[in-house]
Amino acid sequence: MNSITRLLGTKYPLIQGSLAHISTYPLVAAVSNAGGLGTLSSTGLNSKQLALQIQRVKELTNQPFAVNLTLLDANVETLVKIVIEQKVPIVITSAGTPKRFIPALKTAGIKTLAVIPNVKIAKKMESLGVDAVIAEGMESGGHIGQLTTMGLVPQVVAAVNIPVIAAGGIADARGVLAVQALGAQGIQVGTAFLVAEETPIAPEYKQAVITADDMATVVTGNGADAVRGIANGLTDRYFQMIADNAWPEELDKLTTGSLQRAIHGDVATGSLMAGQVAGMITKVEPAATIVKRLMNKVEA
Amino acid sequence: MNSITRLLGTKYPLIQGSLAHISTYPLVAAVSNAGGLGTLSSTGLNSKQLALQIQRVKELTNQPFAVNLTLLDANVETLVKIVIEQKVPIVITSAGTPKRFIPALKTAGIKTLAVIPNVKIAKKMESLGVDAVIAEGMESGGHIGQLTTMGLVPQVVAAVNIPVIAAGGIADARGVLAVQALGAQGIQVGTAFLVAEETPIAPEYKQAVITADDMATVVTGNGADAVRGIANGLTDRYFQMIADNAWPEELDKLTTGSLQRAIHGDVATGSLMAGQVAGMITKVEPAATIVKRLMNKVEA
Repeated sequence: MNSITRLLGTKYPLIQGSLAHISTYPLVAAVSNAGGLGTLSSTGLNSKQLALQIQRVKELTNQPFAVNLTLLDANVETLVKIVIEQKVPIVITSAGTPKRFIPALKTAGIKTLAVIPNVKIAKKMESLGVDAVIAEGMESGGHIGQLTTMGLVPQVVAAVNIPVIAAGGIADARGVLAVQALGAQGIQVGTAFLVAEETPIAPEYKQAVITADDMATVVTGNGADAVRGIANGLTDRYFQMIADNAWPEELDKLTTGSLQRAIHGDVATGSLMAGQVAGMITKVEPAATIVKRLMNKVEA
Repeated sequence: MNSITRLLGTKYPLIQGSLAHISTYPLVAAVSNAGGLGTLSSTGLNSKQLALQIQRVKELTNQPFAVNLTLLDANVETLVKIVIEQKVPIVITSAGTPKRFIPALKTAGIKTLAVIPNVKIAKKMESLGVDAVIAEGMESGGHIGQLTTMGLVPQVVAAVNIPVIAAGGIADARGVLAVQALGAQGIQVGTAFLVAEETPIAPEYKQAVITADDMATVVTGNGADAVRGIANGLTDRYFQMIADNAWPEELDKLTTGSLQRAIHGDVATGSLMAGQVAGMITKVEPAATIVKRLMNKVEA
């Protein structure tokens, strides 16, 4: 997996996937210090807040780290400026096209990776000049596409010439070897880091991930709004409202702020975003331990 | 992957997945002669027809083969009798519990494998005494569950003591190595065999699989009725009817006989069952060539 470690400047070809409101500086620094690439989420942050998060990461590590930019966010242009000013080494883009930002990022020497859900978008990102794509299967937690990791990764690998990083369904060393066999040169992991000691989420949310079994997650929404999380009172109510032909505005009201509620420990009406591998997660651990366990067969 | 070749008596730990109305004796014999395990579909057959199919397979190969029994079929009891009378070496069950048939199958010396979509059912099948489970991810074609191969296989491997065979998302040697890394001891492949020279489907259906890209498939139905196939006029109409709150009877009318229509070349209103790997399939070939390509890295 050397093309990715060369690109990122990390010990391992492992990216901690951006977790909105959750991958803040303590987790990011811990993953980067352990040899992976920590990724700050910029979701919901203004310029000052993002700059502060970046500075905190730099205080805690001298290793490379990334900032995730959700391209549909209204303030993404101001966030790009911060990323450039702060000389963040790597940007990971999702939910939209980074086209208008690529020249400035390249000029600043920032590596750009894009999360992609299918071959068409992977090829488009390659043509825009991104350095690698992160092919994310729909077994992932949070916002998802339609293709699974097994369906997606080999088809993207066959379609583009830039390195492909696999995401979705990877929670241990076996998963790492599996996607390596599919042609991925690196991995991105989200759910396994949810329960890291360094995440700012309430113990109740972590416990929900730990007690989840293989069938614990469900997908709410469709198309670009599809989200995977652990079934609970929120999702029960959501499916009931769908069955009752609720208005989109009513559904929005139900889900608005729901991730924040989960983070603060409301596991009944919060959105417990997590992937299908939640069933494989058994305990809260330091991020460094999670990195080691993921990578222990790759080193061998 | 020796536990599976020992169990099946085959050269390779490779099962050709049962394809309703499609995996008839020419494909089954070709796969078995090539070192895999061909599987006859019994869907839609009466006792006489199944006995005839079995006899034809035996005329064409002296290698082991399997019969798939869909346990919700009304005549499954009479089909079990045929399988026992004909000394079929292996039975693969799907869509229901084989509980009431296990003693008779065991007495007859028939190995029994069960297709399973999650850990709970895998454990139940193990407790019933099946010899192995086939963990099938939702990237597969035809009837599917909710878990992907990456999400499902490692969790089933961790939960049961019998061998686990992985299905879903496997169309080449990379996929075989990937699921082996996840802990599977064998593989089942369906979509790649759809376009084998030996299948009785119209060239138009095969061509639809060959021209499909990664995003060509969609899932119609929910829960136990979820089916993956290539999007076409049938699925467009289906989703329109869902949006229009059509009655279940109207939907049934739309889909009844649709697989038969596809097999006879009606690619507009037929059900073109296929998995997400349809995008990786590039040509019609003999089944033996497909077996070799799947297994070429395992041999090495």
